[in-house]
Parts: sequence; C-alpha cells; structure tokens
Amino acid sequence: MELISIIIVLSGIIALFFAGYLIFKIRRESSGTEKMQEISNAIREGAIAFLNSENKVLVVFVGVVTAILLAVSFIPDSGMYWGTALAFLIGAILSMLSGNIGMRIATMANAKTAQGAKTSVNKGLSIAFSSGAVMGISVVGLGVLGVFGMFLLFSEVLGYAVNVTTNILFGFGFGASSVALFARVGGGIYTKSADVGADLVGKVEENIPEDDPRNPAVIADLVGDNVGDVAGMGADLYESYVESIIAPMALAAVAGGFALQTYGSNAIILPLLISAIGIFASILGMFFVRTGKKSNVYSAMRNGLFASTILVAIFAGVATWYLLDGNMGPYLAILAGLIAGIVIGLNTEYFASEKQKPVKGIAEAAKTGPATVIIQGLVTGMMSTVIPVISVVVAMILSYYFAEFYGVAIAAVGMLSVLGISLATDCYGPVADNAAGIAEMSGMGQEVRERAESLDAVGNTTAAMGKGFAIGSAAITALALISTFIVSLSLHYSPDQILSFLSLGSTTSPYLVAGIFLGAMLPFVFIALTMGAVGKAAYSMVEEVRYQFKEFHLLTDPNSKPDYKRCVSISTKRALREMIIPGLLAVISPIIIGVVFGLIGPKGAGLAGLGGLLIGSIATGFLLAIFLANAGGAWDNAKKYIEAGNLGGKGSPAHKATVIGDTVGDPCKDTSGPSLNILIKLMSVVTLVFLPLFIIFG
Amino acid sequence: MELISIIIVLSGIIALFFAGYLIFKIRRESSGTEKMQEISNAIREGAIAFLNSENKVLVVFVGVVTAILLAVSFIPDSGMYWGTALAFLIGAILSMLSGNIGMRIATMANAKTAQGAKTSVNKGLSIAFSSGAVMGISVVGLGVLGVFGMFLLFSEVLGYAVNVTTNILFGFGFGASSVALFARVGGGIYTKSADVGADLVGKVEENIPEDDPRNPAVIADLVGDNVGDVAGMGADLYESYVESIIAPMALAAVAGGFALQTYGSNAIILPLLISAIGIFASILGMFFVRTGKKSNVYSAMRNGLFASTILVAIFAGVATWYLLDGNMGPYLAILAGLIAGIVIGLNTEYFASEKQKPVKGIAEAAKTGPATVIIQGLVTGMMSTVIPVISVVVAMILSYYFAEFYGVAIAAVGMLSVLGISLATDCYGPVADNAAGIAEMSGMGQEVRERAESLDAVGNTTAAMGKGFAIGSAAITALALISTFIVSLSLHYSPDQILSFLSLGSTTSPYLVAGIFLGAMLPFVFIALTMGAVGKAAYSMVEEVRYQFKEFHLLTDPNSKPDYKRCVSISTKRALREMIIPGLLAVISPIIIGVVFGLIGPKGAGLAGLGGLLIGSIATGFLLAIFLANAGGAWDNAKKYIEAGNLGGKGSPAHKATVIGDTVGDPCKDTSGPSLNILIKLMSVVTLVFLPLFIIFG
Repeated sequence: MELISIIIVLSGIIALFFAGYLIFKIRRESSGTEKMQEISNAIREGAIAFLNSENKVLVVFVGVVTAILLAVSFIPDSGMYWGTALAFLIGAILSMLSGNIGMRIATMANAKTAQGAKTSVNKGLSIAFSSGAVMGISVVGLGVLGVFGMFLLFSEVLGYAVNVTTNILFGFGFGASSVALFARVGGGIYTKSADVGADLVGKVEENIPEDDPRNPAVIADLVGDNVGDVAGMGADLYESYVESIIAPMALAAVAGGFALQTYGSNAIILPLLISAIGIFASILGMFFVRTGKKSNVYSAMRNGLFASTILVAIFAGVATWYLLDGNMGPYLAILAGLIAGIVIGLNTEYFASEKQKPVKGIAEAAKTGPATVIIQGLVTGMMSTVIPVISVVVAMILSYYFAEFYGVAIAAVGMLSVLGISLATDCYGPVADNAAGIAEMSGMGQEVRERAESLDAVGNTTAAMGKGFAIGSAAITALALISTFIVSLSLHYSPDQILSFLSLGSTTSPYLVAGIFLGAMLPFVFIALTMGAVGKAAYSMVEEVRYQFKEFHLLTDPNSKPDYKRCVSISTKRALREMIIPGLLAVISPIIIGVVFGLIGPKGAGLAGLGGLLIGSIATGFLLAIFLANAGGAWDNAKKYIEAGNLGGKGSPAHKATVIGDTVGDPCKDTSGPSLNILIKLMSVVTLVFLPLFIIFG
Repeated sequence: MELISIIIVLSGIIALFFAGYLIFKIRRESSGTEKMQEISNAIREGAIAFLNSENKVLVVFVGVVTAILLAVSFIPDSGMYWGTALAFLIGAILSMLSGNIGMRIATMANAKTAQGAKTSVNKGLSIAFSSGAVMGISVVGLGVLGVFGMFLLFSEVLGYAVNVTTNILFGFGFGASSVALFARVGGGIYTKSADVGADLVGKVEENIPEDDPRNPAVIADLVGDNVGDVAGMGADLYESYVESIIAPMALAAVAGGFALQTYGSNAIILPLLISAIGIFASILGMFFVRTGKKSNVYSAMRNGLFASTILVAIFAGVATWYLLDGNMGPYLAILAGLIAGIVIGLNTEYFASEKQKPVKGIAEAAKTGPATVIIQGLVTGMMSTVIPVISVVVAMILSYYFAEFYGVAIAAVGMLSVLGISLATDCYGPVADNAAGIAEMSGMGQEVRERAESLDAVGNTTAAMGKGFAIGSAAITALALISTFIVSLSLHYSPDQILSFLSLGSTTSPYLVAGIFLGAMLPFVFIALTMGAVGKAAYSMVEEVRYQFKEFHLLTDPNSKPDYKRCVSISTKRALREMIIPGLLAVISPIIIGVVFGLIGPKGAGLAGLGGLLIGSIATGFLLAIFLANAGGAWDNAKKYIEAGNLGGKGSPAHKATVIGDTVGDPCKDTSGPSLNILIKLMSVVTLVFLPLFIIFG
C-alpha cells in the first residue's frame, strides 16, 4: 500500500513539475513583434477579465453552497458530514486553479505559436501543443492529487471510516461540477455570443474579413475561444476525471458490497493507481508527439494518443494483477471503457470530417439552398448517435459482466485515464485558432498565415474528436455515478427494498417512469435556455458593434480605434447572467424530484424518481449532445469544404447556404451541446451529495 | 351486461349510419364547374392510385406477418394462439377500410367545399367539416365494433378464457399498427416529397405561384395532403384508439391482478363503454359545430369539441358508477387523461399560433436572417415540450394513484374518447387546403379564393392542435401498453421475479439501462431515416418537374399540359420504397432486444431490455415528436405572420428567411414527427404480441 501511495503522489507531482517545465520552455519563445504582443495582451486581458468576473460570481455561489452544506451537516440525523463542505470548497478551488493555469498559458502561447509558425509549421505545432499539454497535465495532476489528498485527509488523518470518506469525496466532485457549470455554460454562451456578434455585423453587414482588427468584437471573439474551448473544456473534463475516480472508490468502499467482498479493500485504491498510470503514459505519449518531425501534424498527435492508450492498456493490467491478486475482471472493464472512448472519438471524426460522406452530403445539399443544408445536417447529426450509443451500451454490459457495478464505474476511469494527452490535443486547437487570428490581425504575411491556418484546421478536427470524447466520458461518468447511487442505497435499505424502489414493476413504478420522462425533458429545456441565451447575448453584441462602427467611424477613419474592452465586458456580463437559470435548473431539479416525490408518493418514490431522472437525463442528454456536436461540426466543415474550392467555392450560392448552416451549428456544438455534459454529471453528483436527505424524505 | 353490450354495439352502428348520412348529404352538394371537377378527379385518382399501390405492398406485408403469426402459434409451447393471426388480419383490414372511407370522402368533398365557399364561408365550413366528420366517426365506429366483435368472437363464440382473448386482441392492435405504419410513414414521405418538389422548382426556380396548374407536381402536392393528413392521421389515431381500448381490457383480465380483484370483471368492459359514450358525445358535439351560424369557424369547432368533452366527463362518471359499483378511481383516471389531452392541445396551439410570443419571436429573428430563424425555431420547439411532459407525468401519477396500472391504461381511453370529433376537426384541414388549391387552379375569383383560404388558415390551427393531440395520445397509449406488459408478466413470474427483472438495482440492471439508451436512440434514427427519405424522394421529384417544364414547354406553350400522373407515381413509388427500412426497424427492434438480451444475459435480461427499450423510446419519441411538430408549426406560422404584412411582408428578406424556416419545418412536422407516434406504439404492441416468445428466451 505504501508503494502504491508513493506512485500515486509521485504521478501528481511529476505532472505538475512537467507542466512547470513546459511553461518554462514556452516562456522562452519569442512573442514576435510589438503588434503581435499587443494583440496577445488584449486577448489575455480579456480572458483574465472574464475569469475575474466569473470568479466573483463563483465565490458567492461556492460560499453559499458551502454554507448550506455546513448548515445541513449540523442538523442532527441529517446523515451529512461537515467534511463534505470542505471537500466541496477544495474541489472548486482546484478546478478554478487548473482552469486558470490552462487559460493563462493558452493566452500566453498564442502569439508565440504565430511567431513559431514563421520558422516552421513544426515549431508552431510544438509551441501550441505544449501549451495544450500544460492544461492537460495540470488537470490530471491536480485531479489525482486532489482526490488522493482528500482521501488521506479524511481516512488517515481524521480517521473517518472509508465509506464515509468516499461519501465526503462526492463533495469534492460537486465542487468541481459547480466550477465546470460556470466555465462550460457561461464560457459557451460567451464564446458564441462574441463569435456570432462579430460575424453578423463584420462579415455579413460590413463585409470585412474574419479577425479584422477594425471589428470591435474581434478580441472578444478570440477571448471566447480561450474561455469556451480551453477553460470550459478543461473544467468539464476535470469534473469527469475526478468524479470517474471517486465513483468506483465509493462503490468499492460500500460495506458488504460486491467489490469489497470480491477484490478486498485494494479495489478502493485501484482507480487512483490506474489514473496515475494514465498520467505517466500521457507524459510519455507527449514526447511521441514532440519528436514527430514530419509535417503531418494530425497523425503526430493521433500517434501520441494511441501510444499512451497502449501504455495504459498494458500497465493497467499489471496494476490490477498486483492489487487485486489476479482478479482481472475490473481490468477488462477498464479496457472496455478505453476502447469505447476511442470508438466514440473516431465516430465523431468520421461524421465531422471533410473527407467523408456525411460532410460532403451536406455540401451537396447546399446546391438546393440553405433549407436542405439544415435538413441534411439534422439527418447527419441524428444518424451519428448510433455508434456512440452502441459503444456505451456494449461497454456497460461488458463491464457489468466483468465486475458488476464496480466494473461500470471503473470503465469510466479507463476511458478517462489518457485524459492528460487527449486534453492536450483538444486545447491545442484554440491556441492555434488564436495564432491564426493574431497572424491575420498583425499582418504577418501570406505564408505565416497559411501555416497558422493549417495548424488551426487540424485543431478543428482534434477539437471535434475532443468534443466526442468529452461527451462520451460525461455519459460514462454519469453512469458510474448512478451505479454508485444504486449501490450506496444498500447502506440504508434491504436488497428487496432497493429492488422494489427502483423497479418498473412496483408501486413506485409511476415515479420511476415520471423521473425518466422529466429527466429526458431537462436536456431539451437546457438546450433551449442556453441557445436562447446565445441569441440574446449576441443581440446585445450586435448592437454594440453597430454602435461603435458608427460612432467611431471605424471603417472610414484609419486613425480611429475600436473599444475592444466594451465588447469583452458585454460578453462577460451577459454570459454570467444568462447562465443562472440553466445552472439552477441542473442543481435544483434532483433536489425537487427527490423531496417532492418522496413526500407525495409511497416509500421509495423519491429514490425511484431520482433514479429515473438520472437515467432519463443521461440517455437523452448523451444523444442530444452527440447530435448537436456532430451536426454542428459537420455544418462547419461543409462550409470549409466549399471554401476549399468545391461546388463553386467561396462566395457561391452554395457557400452562402453553408454559412447559414454553420451559424446554426455554432451554438449547437459550442454552447448547448457541451453544456449537456455538465447537466448530466452535475445532477448525478448532486444526487449523491444529498442522498442522506433524500433517504430521510423517502 | 346485456344492456352494456347493446349500448356498445349500438354506438358503433349509429356511428356508421351517421357517417353514411353525412356522405349522402355531401354527395348532394354541387361539385362546381367542369374544370373544378376535373381537378378534383385528378386528386381523387392520384389518392386512390397511392392507396392501391400502398395496398399492394400492404397485402404482401400483412400476408407474411399473418403467416408468421400462424406458424409460430403452431409451434408447441410457443404460448401463442392462431387467433392472434386472425385478429391481426381483421385489424389491418378495418384500419385500411377506415382510411379508404376517409380519403375517398375527403377527395370528394374538396371541390364541393370550394363550390360551397362561393355561397358563404359557413357553407364551405359545413361541407369540409362534414367530410372530416365522416372520417372521425368511421374510425371510432369501426374501432369499437372491431374490438368488441373480436372480443365476443373469441370469448363468447369460441369460448376462450377472457385473458387469452384480450391477449389475442393485441393482434388486432398490431394489425392496425401495421397499416398505420404504411399510412403515416409512407404518407408522410409522400406528402412532403411532393410539396418540397413542387415548391423548389415551381416557386423558387420558375417563380410561379403555389398551386399553379402548369406545375406538374401540383396534383401530387394536393394528393399528398390527403395521403398524409387524412389517411395517415386517420390510421395513426385508429391505432391509438383501438390499442388504448385493448390495453385496459387486457390489464383487467389478468387473473389475480389489481383491477379484477378490486373492480370485478366489469372492469374489462368499461373501456368499451367509455368509448361508446365518447361516440355519442362526439356526434352530439358535431351538431353543435354545424349549428354555429356565426362566421368564426375556429371557435365553432372548439365549442363542439368542448361540448363533447363535457358530455363524456359527465356520462363516463355515470357509467363507471354503474359498472364498478361506485368505485370511482378509474373515473378519476379517465378525467386525468381527458384533461391532459386538452392541455397538450392548448399548448400546441399556443406555440404554433401567430398571435402568441413564440411565433412572433421567430418572425422577429428573421430580421437577422435565416440562421436566427432556425435557431429560434429550435429553441421554441424544445421549450414547447415542458407542458406536455408535465401533463403526461401528472396524469400518469394521478391515474396510478386512483387505480394503479389499470388507471394509467384507462386514462388513455379518457384522452381518446372524444376522438370522433377531434379527428373531424383535424381532417377538416386538408379538405379546406385542397379546396383553396382547387379555387386557385380553376380560377374561381378573388372572393371565393379568400374564403377558401380563411377556411384553410383555420385548418392549419386545428391541424396543429390535432397533431399535439395525436402525439399525446400516442404517448399515453404506449404507456398503457407498457403497463399491460408489466402486469401481464404476473401470469408467468412471481411478484419478486418481476420486481427484480425490471429493477435498476438488480443483476438485469445493465440490460434495463441499455434498453433505455437504445430506446432513446431509435427515435433519432427514425427521424434521420424519414427526413433523409423526404430529401431523396423530393430530389427525384425535382428532376421530374424540371424535365417536364423543359420537354413539354409548360411555361411557354399555353396548349401544353403537364403529365400529373408521372409525378404522382414518383411520389408513390419513392414513399413506399423509403419507408421499408424505418418500418422494419420499428417491428424488429423489440424482437432483437428481447431475444438477444434474453440469450446473453441472466434470467429476465430480455424482459429488462424490452421494458427499457419501450420506456426509453416513449420518453424520447414523445419529446422529439412534440419538438418537431411545434417547431415545424411555429416556422410555418412565422412565415404566414410575415406574409400577413408584418415586418416587411411578402418578398422582404425577413420573409425569405422564414420561407427557409418553413421548408426545414415541413418534414419535421409532417413526416418525421408524426412517424414517431407510430414507432412508439408499434414497438409496444409488437412486444405484447410476441411476449410469449420473449418469456421463452428469458
């Protein structure tokens, strides 16, 4: 056990040192001309301004929730511990920290990437990827250290029983979830309102190019890439990562449960060890990317990811063998999760790739106008759900077969074990995107711009794959959490009671079905709210940009300068305001269902409603998230396919039709779709944190 | 019991006589000029040509399924009866018959309605509504007579036990389902491929008005209204109607079940008596519409519907009191269903009405172009799911509280009891639509055309409400069927086994969850397939129309005539071909899940998978159907709102943006959305028919 603890702690520390080393290396790179630095600074300031505003709201939110958690824990017989409040606080702080690190490094690296591209594509790649790697490796390092630290604090230092400790750990997950909610939903609204606002006035009304420095919203747009795709994505996956580790730990800690009886107490620590292995594998895989000297950026990254995956697949087997005395069931579950993650990623790649039939089909449909583009995109997005659903279903059935609910939970750990490197490839995208923007704005010339754009194009593909991975991991993490929910009930009820409460065939059946219906409905409402929020925020932005164009004579007077900060501040304010209602919906829904159904129905009705709510929201949320991500990605790439000169090229009626498709797809893939990841996980973790209460209300 | 039987039979016979009387009255009306009759005949021929082609395919399909059902029934210990095959055959024939009656009368009444509008709006209304009433009242008459006839045949004449008889009755439902599949899915593809094909070449490319007689696809388009909105809608609701009656009958027949023990065997006959009361109430309500002399067409129909509803609410109470010896639980469940149906209809009306915020919001969004129209429509459609879901959930929980699963099942009977009149108001729409088309094509002059269009406009609203009602009734019918599925298991398993098989907390849990995921996925696939089918079929139509315009010099040579029949035949062939895969998917999915999960999983895994599959598909199918119907309706009416002169009126950029929204919405609301009604019911009824097999495979 000593050795294992050392390995786990070491993995976290090495991760942070490696991140520090990368930061040191990136800092030494040149940030290019004064003009470039100026733009980069503006983006950085905007991003930090958003973070600061967000943090102000977060401090209030986290404070209130911490207070509530504390207060509840002091109610006699509430069954809740004060430690949950502390864990919540630490979880939130660590998630904020990793988001901050990622965003600061990303906004530092953008100009350096553009400058690097001046030397060679590979130099640019190296810088952009390194900055993504800082984010990826910080997230997993802080994740493992945070979870293990909390675990040691409560079980070893404070001497709580192991199952109480793991219960408290859900507070840690809840903290990460809360930050993710703000970062993902707020960030998603921010990024698209800025993007749509900049495009609608700039490209459409005034006919100036993308990233034109005269456009007042251009900095807000570039900030948005960092806010949404770096900080938002990072917080989303930090949440998935820590919750996927906590769920099987908690499951294994349930006294009398299958995992503890079959594998012994080492099953509690296995998820952390697998994650530690994943960290080492990710770092090794990164060297693989960085030595790729050939110009094929994409396959270099893909090879790195595959290398890490293979390393995890090997060493996770060794670890399981060692810890569980040759019981390889959980290892097979880990493999199932790992493979499902890859299949979901490849599926996304297929449906969003310009080289494949779906995107070409949408581009073909552009010949008959925008309506057929939209219809074909809807068809593509809906069809793209089949393989991910089947992958998750197969992985779930297999992992249950291998190790019951513990298997389902640890499959999520398998899928997320290579997060360090897969998040690095995701976060590479927005940095490359920013670099291309800076190259354009600072007038670096045709060649550099083209190189930066080729990096950006790859970034779009990796970002699409990353989105698929994020959705898949959210679904499987949520399934892990609901498995824990079911198993945890055995601490309070007899097996027969649990069977009955959660059965379609009992008197609580209508509450279970009602929960499924309501759970299936929530993603629709969540999409409507977030998409509507983008519309409202974009509208404010459009008005501001129009105002500035007119008042400051931006297009006619070469000496006039737009006020970028006002646009940044509009996006920030609107994003934080518009996320309140969807955010509250996610937190409050399980509490309402658990309490109300518990009060009005027979015994167990509240739990039945919760079980249904979670399963219904996971199933529908997962489907809708894939649908939105892939439809959005396919629309985007259909436009790019035509821009590459096919079917009439840029400016043709077919191109205009795909621009409309792309505009529809933007909030789908960058706001509403990713927000669903948060919804399904947050509801699950809220259920677990407040489970003692729901048990009181029945 | 004698008296009750007489009332039931009488209701069916009176319904058919009343339909005959209406047909007699309609026939006496003038069909107008020779030109009008010519057009009407062309539509009629086209519609009948489609019916004949469809019937040819249906005969094969029905023949094969009948043979399979027969063959299976002769396998020893299969647990299936030959009677199921017979019931299937009769169910299919009666559904075809009611579709035929409705479509023949609708295609007869269109010219007469246009001619009637020459006299007055009221005259036109009277004819169009009467023809809708023929359809409505035939459906319910044939429904009640069919179900009761089968029931008497097997239980009284052939002497089967009551629970065997009701089991056989599901074959009748399956027959109705199969026809509905062809009529709704095939009809939906037909109507939109013709519509889109006609518009894309006529309105967009050649710039000629809607319903221009020179457009070769114009007749196919008018045929489509009948094929989709009369025959398709009729078959869909015939299915809902008979299955909602059969489900509580079967539930009440389960030996040892709650209903039989609490209410006695009269509970078996109660659903039929309620339906009989609904028939009388519908006929009385129709007189209410026909005496409305004021020109407000819409409120006349609405009053008729409300009058019928109140009559049912009163007399259903009396009937329940009498039959169940004062046990009023099921009556309260009926009321819950009745109210839920009305709320869902009103919700649809709100979201699709030009006078309300949602449609105006979409029209406003048109100021910033088609992309924002699409986004706003998606937001509207998704938001519109909230009230229907809550209505169904509340109705379900209440009706279970009042009378357990029997309550849930009989709530569906309550909702569908007033189908006679509500279907009449639905089917009024396409007749009015056709009448407006005939007025245009035959050049009847401005005033008549305007009157016909005002009838048509009301038809759009009633059709939207009808769609909401159809979806709600499909969902609640499917819930009734799944309740029967659960209760029927008690004939084969102990209560503890059933609890365990269908529980999230047992070893079959992953199969239940997998079923929910796969069930939630199927509606997405179904939408993708049907929407893609419209695209393909419309493309064939576009090519044909372009060819005819060019070859026959239709726009330049006044003596040339288009070949309408070729277009009709293209729509027919493509529709029937494209519906095969989605159709098979609906029939085969439950069989695959039930058998495969049964074979690979522990005992009960097949049943868990089926339970999950049905609940998952009902929840997501219901949500997506409402979303598609209301988004489609709202886009349509946003266009009409602008055409009425708002925001720049016809021809403005805003108008063009809403035309794109409308084109996207067309397959949503008229093909894919309604097809989901069939999917969820068909899967449920297939599960019940083949339940004995699934029990063998475990």
